Amino acid sequence: MLRSKLAELIAAVRDGTVGTEEALDRLEKLPYEDVGFARIDHHRTLRRGMPEVVYAPGKTPDQVLAIVDRMIASGTPVLVSRVDPGVASLLACHHPESVHHESARLVSIGGVDRRQGGLVVVVSAGTADIPVAEEAALTAEFAGSPVERFYDVGVAGLHRLLPGLDLMRRAACIVAVAGMEGALPSVVAGLVACPVVAVPTSVGYGASFGGLAALLAMLNSCAGGVAVVNIDAGFNAGFVASLVARVASAEPR
Amino acid sequence: MLRSKLAELIAAVRDGTVGTEEALDRLEKLPYEDVGFARIDHHRTLRRGMPEVVYAPGKTPDQVLAIVDRMIASGTPVLVSRVDPGVASLLACHHPESVHHESARLVSIGGVDRRQGGLVVVVSAGTADIPVAEEAALTAEFAGSPVERFYDVGVAGLHRLLPGLDLMRRAACIVAVAGMEGALPSVVAGLVACPVVAVPTSVGYGASFGGLAALLAMLNSCAGGVAVVNIDAGFNAGFVASLVARVASAEPR
Amino acid sequence: MLRSKLAELIAAVRDGTVGTEEALDRLEKLPYEDVGFARIDHHRTLRRGMPEVVYAPGKTPDQVLAIVDRMIASGTPVLVSRVDPGVASLLACHHPESVHHESARLVSIGGVDRRQGGLVVVVSAGTADIPVAEEAALTAEFAGSPVERFYDVGVAGLHRLLPGLDLMRRAACIVAVAGMEGALPSVVAGLVACPVVAVPTSVGYGASFGGLAALLAMLNSCAGGVAVVNIDAGFNAGFVASLVARVASAEPR
Amino acid sequence: MLRSKLAELIAAVRDGTVGTEEALDRLEKLPYEDVGFARIDHHRTLRRGMPEVVYAPGKTPDQVLAIVDRMIASGTPVLVSRVDPGVASLLACHHPESVHHESARLVSIGGVDRRQGGLVVVVSAGTADIPVAEEAALTAEFAGSPVERFYDVGVAGLHRLLPGLDLMRRAACIVAVAGMEGALPSVVAGLVACPVVAVPTSVGYGASFGGLAALLAMLNSCAGGVAVVNIDAGFNAGFVASLVARVASAEPR
Amino acid sequence: MLRSKLAELIAAVRDGTVGTEEALDRLEKLPYEDVGFARIDHHRTLRRGMPEVVYAPGKTPDQVLAIVDRMIASGTPVLVSRVDPGVASLLACHHPESVHHESARLVSIGGVDRRQGGLVVVVSAGTADIPVAEEAALTAEFAGSPVERFYDVGVAGLHRLLPGLDLMRRAACIVAVAGMEGALPSVVAGLVACPVVAVPTSVGYGASFGGLAALLAMLNSCAGGVAVVNIDAGFNAGFVASLVARVASAEPR
Amino acid sequence: MLRSKLAELIAAVRDGTVGTEEALDRLEKLPYEDVGFARIDHHRTLRRGMPEVVYAPGKTPDQVLAIVDRMIASGTPVLVSRVDPGVASLLACHHPESVHHESARLVSIGGVDRRQGGLVVVVSAGTADIPVAEEAALTAEFAGSPVERFYDVGVAGLHRLLPGLDLMRRAACIVAVAGMEGALPSVVAGLVACPVVAVPTSVGYGASFGGLAALLAMLNSCAGGVAVVNIDAGFNAGFVASLVARVASAEPR
Amino acid sequence: MLRSKLAELIAAVRDGTVGTEEALDRLEKLPYEDVGFARIDHHRTLRRGMPEVVYAPGKTPDQVLAIVDRMIASGTPVLVSRVDPGVASLLACHHPESVHHESARLVSIGGVDRRQGGLVVVVSAGTADIPVAEEAALTAEFAGSPVERFYDVGVAGLHRLLPGLDLMRRAACIVAVAGMEGALPSVVAGLVACPVVAVPTSVGYGASFGGLAALLAMLNSCAGGVAVVNIDAGFNAGFVASLVARVASAEPR
Amino acid sequence: MLRSKLAELIAAVRDGTVGTEEALDRLEKLPYEDVGFARIDHHRTLRRGMPEVVYAPGKTPDQVLAIVDRMIASGTPVLVSRVDPGVASLLACHHPESVHHESARLVSIGGVDRRQGGLVVVVSAGTADIPVAEEAALTAEFAGSPVERFYDVGVAGLHRLLPGLDLMRRAACIVAVAGMEGALPSVVAGLVACPVVAVPTSVGYGASFGGLAALLAMLNSCAGGVAVVNIDAGFNAGFVASLVARVASAEPR
Repeated sequence: MLRSKLAELIAAVRDGTVGTEEALDRLEKLPYEDVGFARIDHHRTLRRGMPEVVYAPGKTPDQVLAIVDRMIASGTPVLVSRVDPGVASLLACHHPESVHHESARLVSIGGVDRRQGGLVVVVSAGTADIPVAEEAALTAEFAGSPVERFYDVGVAGLHRLLPGLDLMRRAACIVAVAGMEGALPSVVAGLVACPVVAVPTSVGYGASFGGLAALLAMLNSCAGGVAVVNIDAGFNAGFVASLVARVASAEPR
Repeated sequence: MLRSKLAELIAAVRDGTVGTEEALDRLEKLPYEDVGFARIDHHRTLRRGMPEVVYAPGKTPDQVLAIVDRMIASGTPVLVSRVDPGVASLLACHHPESVHHESARLVSIGGVDRRQGGLVVVVSAGTADIPVAEEAALTAEFAGSPVERFYDVGVAGLHRLLPGLDLMRRAACIVAVAGMEGALPSVVAGLVACPVVAVPTSVGYGASFGGLAALLAMLNSCAGGVAVVNIDAGFNAGFVASLVARVASAEPR
Repeated sequence: MLRSKLAELIAAVRDGTVGTEEALDRLEKLPYEDVGFARIDHHRTLRRGMPEVVYAPGKTPDQVLAIVDRMIASGTPVLVSRVDPGVASLLACHHPESVHHESARLVSIGGVDRRQGGLVVVVSAGTADIPVAEEAALTAEFAGSPVERFYDVGVAGLHRLLPGLDLMRRAACIVAVAGMEGALPSVVAGLVACPVVAVPTSVGYGASFGGLAALLAMLNSCAGGVAVVNIDAGFNAGFVASLVARVASAEPR
Repeated sequence: MLRSKLAELIAAVRDGTVGTEEALDRLEKLPYEDVGFARIDHHRTLRRGMPEVVYAPGKTPDQVLAIVDRMIASGTPVLVSRVDPGVASLLACHHPESVHHESARLVSIGGVDRRQGGLVVVVSAGTADIPVAEEAALTAEFAGSPVERFYDVGVAGLHRLLPGLDLMRRAACIVAVAGMEGALPSVVAGLVACPVVAVPTSVGYGASFGGLAALLAMLNSCAGGVAVVNIDAGFNAGFVASLVARVASAEPR
Repeated sequence: MLRSKLAELIAAVRDGTVGTEEALDRLEKLPYEDVGFARIDHHRTLRRGMPEVVYAPGKTPDQVLAIVDRMIASGTPVLVSRVDPGVASLLACHHPESVHHESARLVSIGGVDRRQGGLVVVVSAGTADIPVAEEAALTAEFAGSPVERFYDVGVAGLHRLLPGLDLMRRAACIVAVAGMEGALPSVVAGLVACPVVAVPTSVGYGASFGGLAALLAMLNSCAGGVAVVNIDAGFNAGFVASLVARVASAEPR
Repeated sequence: MLRSKLAELIAAVRDGTVGTEEALDRLEKLPYEDVGFARIDHHRTLRRGMPEVVYAPGKTPDQVLAIVDRMIASGTPVLVSRVDPGVASLLACHHPESVHHESARLVSIGGVDRRQGGLVVVVSAGTADIPVAEEAALTAEFAGSPVERFYDVGVAGLHRLLPGLDLMRRAACIVAVAGMEGALPSVVAGLVACPVVAVPTSVGYGASFGGLAALLAMLNSCAGGVAVVNIDAGFNAGFVASLVARVASAEPR
Repeated sequence: MLRSKLAELIAAVRDGTVGTEEALDRLEKLPYEDVGFARIDHHRTLRRGMPEVVYAPGKTPDQVLAIVDRMIASGTPVLVSRVDPGVASLLACHHPESVHHESARLVSIGGVDRRQGGLVVVVSAGTADIPVAEEAALTAEFAGSPVERFYDVGVAGLHRLLPGLDLMRRAACIVAVAGMEGALPSVVAGLVACPVVAVPTSVGYGASFGGLAALLAMLNSCAGGVAVVNIDAGFNAGFVASLVARVASAEPR
Repeated sequence: MLRSKLAELIAAVRDGTVGTEEALDRLEKLPYEDVGFARIDHHRTLRRGMPEVVYAPGKTPDQVLAIVDRMIASGTPVLVSRVDPGVASLLACHHPESVHHESARLVSIGGVDRRQGGLVVVVSAGTADIPVAEEAALTAEFAGSPVERFYDVGVAGLHRLLPGLDLMRRAACIVAVAGMEGALPSVVAGLVACPVVAVPTSVGYGASFGGLAALLAMLNSCAGGVAVVNIDAGFNAGFVASLVARVASAEPR
């Protein structure tokens, strides 16, 4: 619509309705206001194919609802992250089609139906890491990627990890979720060829310092090909993985 | 070659040269020694198309040379990272075909000729970040990716960043390198659709704490789609970006 | 009144009522007690035009009330910060003219009516940063500055920030409030000419470490002209901004 | 010049030289390239009246010289910060009019002659803090502010601080520089009405952790009106102070 | 059973039921799936004689129960650590033979009857350290080690420590538990000849930073022979000590 | 009583009841058990004149009561620190003579009547620091020192501090309590001649990191003569101050 | 001399040479300039009996010399701390009576001859801690205290500590110096009745983090009566100890 | 010799040469001086079979030599750790029989000939970790343990680790040395039954923070049976491992 606004202005210049000075003024301001960069925004939504995500913490339930309402009204599928049960109920009340993924603390309304791009595989180390892993897996699915899960495979029992080798080698991107010493991404990255998105979790106690130990370990991975997201950032990991996997189906450039 | 070793053993079992017990023993040990997991290794080299990299620090010049010699002998292109001038000279003396990329502290011998996969774009914030950015760019090139550079675009002067928009939007993966407050990846990720690999650098002073400030900022990016590597880890960033960009040319799965 | 006390003493010396020794004693003690430095205090109130502020945490409700009572009695407008609802109710009960700004956790009683000095603009990055931003904005207003708000403008969507350019360029001082990666002040400072007071918030999770990531990012801003206050310190930011903006209307020196 | 470029385009549209489609394309790209935001830049230089500053560390001597050359050629006064003696000599060789402020590690070429705006007062705690204090003072002077220095006034000897009271009370902005426990800004801010820019220095040992102790102390100042810059960031402190003091002489808005 | 699976395959190769290609395929996959490493697992259980342990936090009560049920069904004794009262009650309801060690937050079901190997001695510094010490002692007992406790012996009262000298000198391994300054392991290690497993606890306040002070002190012990586990990690300390003490009764190699 | 035990042994040796070997054995063990070091303990109580203190956290109410009962039974005055109201009530029920100092979270039973030694002065910066200051003051009083309090004297209002100069100069030891930037001890130490015991408190928010900022500031005090205790450690500060002040009345050595 | 200045003024008022207004002006300024607080200063020197100390780092050799010259000229004994050999030589050249204590990095010129007050005992843990211990001991001696040293007594060999018991029990104040785990002060404080000044040193490696481990341990000492100074702060420890010991000889108050 | 001293005293008591009072006095002091605890010392050397170790840093070359001389004179084998080449040469000059292990920075003079106890296996992750691994291996050998090395087995290439399985399973104790993400001990502990002593190294860069990342990872190992020593603490790891392995050959208790 930027284009149509500009076309209008050009027409007005041409037919003399708008003088040079006024045209200059409007052109200078245009890109900073609601035209130029809205195009960027539109472009993003278009190419990313990723509907907007609402991060719930720090917003009142009413704020969350209002934002969701507006997005639904504009036909956008919505993913709300880190929802507590009260917000989930409120959303369910107003949007009965919403789905509450409890362990992942996500609510989705609508979403991308068609699975496209490469496979995203989510592996996680312990039972307690599953909520974060699910947040990643559901986000990637919401963004349209085919997703496989492979959970509870800690490095202290390599035999549990290896049955997943074939699966992991089919992935376009692997999300590796681990707390405590955070060694899983290093071991996984040594076994596969695709990029590994590492997610440290706050699972652990004492000197895990709320996930700091796992975070540092992942940043220092001796295995090339590992990139890291914030502690417990399942959503962002699923998002990155989906972007990577989508590249797999992109047209040649 | 694993396969041929196994074929030999199977033949020997079949013609009775090797008895059941001995076959059992050899099979049990095989995968842990130099056969089963060497296949994994081979597989990695094959699929990743990434030749081995030698991280020079902590190795004596002679150790570096010996490793490089063996790799060259086996026909593998070699990338040596974090080389100081002395090591570079030693390598140049023994391998005159070696190329020393001084600011990036890399020495490459051989490499992948054909450019393949999606475009990798490396953006960096300040002049002092260029060595790390170059390490990323050269690594991605070494791994066979087409690479474009776009340097010296700090967030305090957005006008310098925006001329690169078209370039960045053609990327399959962007490497964003920044020290100090490390805000570049957030701004970049808000403008494009591809994944962004963020590299914090140790550029800065005082409360930058050797790159910690930039690292934390990048991990906390409010823009989805950003994953982070270690401080000054240009090599790993280039490696991850190349893996991501390669997905772009992979066969459909 | 110091002056009058001193004048009395001088008179008493002159007419011999007070001897040299006693005069010496009283003069030596005077400035340390309740005279000399009370003048300083008076001077501060006078020039700063900033009424006293009561920081509620760590004080019992009764202590807060007692302090407020005394200040009201002396005709001073009062700002109470970080009030919880119980304290606000107690104050409302005793001082029906008090105003409770809930999201900013402030209670004001009285205040400066006339707006004077330059414009203070408060910008904030996310919805969750608004309480801190409001604390800053209300404080600056309470101190007499004209204030404009411009909220929800994160660096991952520059198009949302730019419509505020004109507003920001009219400011005598900008307060920039952000959590997570804390990049907003750098971007803002690159666009304007006035000083920017950066306020990191504790909004975020994981490696934001309660606002530390944003704090470090702001301290390391590559854009000159940014100064930083404590995490979530909306009050102090508003106070500093008001002091800066007031300079704008000061008499030439 | 953006305006003239736009005027050309409008003229071309009007006389039909440029068609609608082409005009649309050029208008869409214009602001992101070298037009719209270059105006911003120009605007900044104009209003801030602050010539560009070159931060030397991480740049080769030749890079520094090249940048300085280009700036001098365009008639801009230059301030180079954190220069080591070698770079200073190189600059002196090519630009004999350059001035090397050794203890502050600054080289200035040209500068603002006329002193304007309010007074900047720089106070510092110990002898070892003087280089950082000088960096602040010289920067503010370079930016055109009248500056007064008041050094070696630690909080453990209040009597040394108080003779400067009159001076400090005439300031439009005070820069307070201190290492170790960093208490000076709190004490100063309690005595004056203007904003205080606090600069922690890395002076100290042991648990000063390179200035962290002073930084944290300043961020937690119980005295309102204190904002903080990075450790040893004399340049930025002088810059902020000059911006604040300049407000003092600005036209009413 | 790996051996028997392999024997079957060898027989099938020999009698021609399985062709070379298929044999190659199955052999390549075998060790990564459920054969080779399951043997490792079996081996571990066998040699360690340590039944599985279920770490309760991060698991739902139902998950804990399900895991315990399966383990009991397979005849394995079970130790559940960090149980809250609700989980303990649930387990008691379904497994009346379970024993709840409240202060140590452990539930054991079954366990090793026969005491074997060297003596484990658990010493602790303060009353508040006893829960962690008990977790260590009960774990070591559960693993079959004879255990003696010697509690409330802080370094500020050496006379309380010394009566335990004889006991400590009979130990094959000592677990030393302490919060606050964490000095107990250093003092103990200076008095005995066996290895000391140091357990920092989160007992303390202020600059103990949740046990960090004790952890660092123990890692820096000037007394050789001290190795450290995570903060509050009573279970792991008891496990390590039991492994060490078990060596005492191992067959000569 | 050690002496009498030894005397018995000597007698037994002399009259031959105990043989040389047995005597050797008993002598070797004696000091480590319950004799030699119990003397030390006795000696401490005697000289320090400081009754035992029970630190309540981490102990069950019953454990606290049991310890107090035994101490009362042996005629020792008792100070229980960090008591919550439940424990205070329990103690009041069993020991009606107990006194609960609520804000300081102390319960005292008995105590030293006679005031002796030099004066301890407790100064504190803010209202919220008073509980810690009271813990210090009451502990010093309990230990027998004359104590004066001087509260609410922050460094941002020096005029409030100076009226206490005379008082502070009469002190044998000053306890200076402050949160936030923790500057009070530096300022105080610059004004007096006696040792200053600095107590950082956890009062503050954001980058005060639970008192860390104040702690570091105090450790880095530029004023000689300041020694520091743990965050919020009012008890230990009062204890140290009382030991120092007691020296004042000690016999010449 | 303040008194005489005031006397002059009073005389001038009385004889009419100075009018009321002028008297008011001069009286108001007096205490902040060179009169009131210089008295404080004088008072400090008088009572503390501690000559000035010059901290050399961050000062040029010429600055150090100039300060020393002025102090010597005014008859004050001087202690220069943290001197490197160059500065020591320079001082020796100009002040041949200067004494260079190499391992303690101190230069003293003049000093207090008469030993007075209680005994200061300096104990240290390892050979590498001796320079810091010597800095403490020499400072206390310089300040006039009788000092005894007792070095190389680590907690891992209690038998080395105990022969010093008698000595330590005669102390008015003990300085306990230790690196690594920093446990010495806790053990010492448990054996004596006087206050213990703990000095953490940067001796150690790895997780000692430059003395942080020892610092935290000392702050968390379970033994009452321990106060802590900065890492490697031998000078301040000796200063505090001397102040404490001096109290011992003070007149009763 | 304690025993003989005591025997003398007992004889003297018996024959009346020493009276009761004097005997009491001497007995009270005896254990604190050079008798009781020297026995402890002797006992340690005897049982531990570990000769004394001299930690060179922080000692002058002459101090090191003097200590070594005294130990050699008393017939004790000596291990000097962290020696730089100068000290090694000095020792070689005076003790030609000394052996300098360069990469491990150790000098040994004499040592234990007979290998005894269980096998110690030292595994390490990267080439740069070898110096620390060698320090551990040589220390364990020096202490008399049979030692096997298995180096350069990182977790990113599991196939390199597994050939060592048989070796590792024969160990009485394994020392696992790793920098960067420090995952090796977790993986190793999952494969074996013996205790694992984990040694983090300072190998790495950026967010490895000098070994902190590896240290935290090891402390948070999800595999039971891992205990940790200080960063780069090869000596202590070898010492602990040798103590553990020695238990293997100890008499049954």
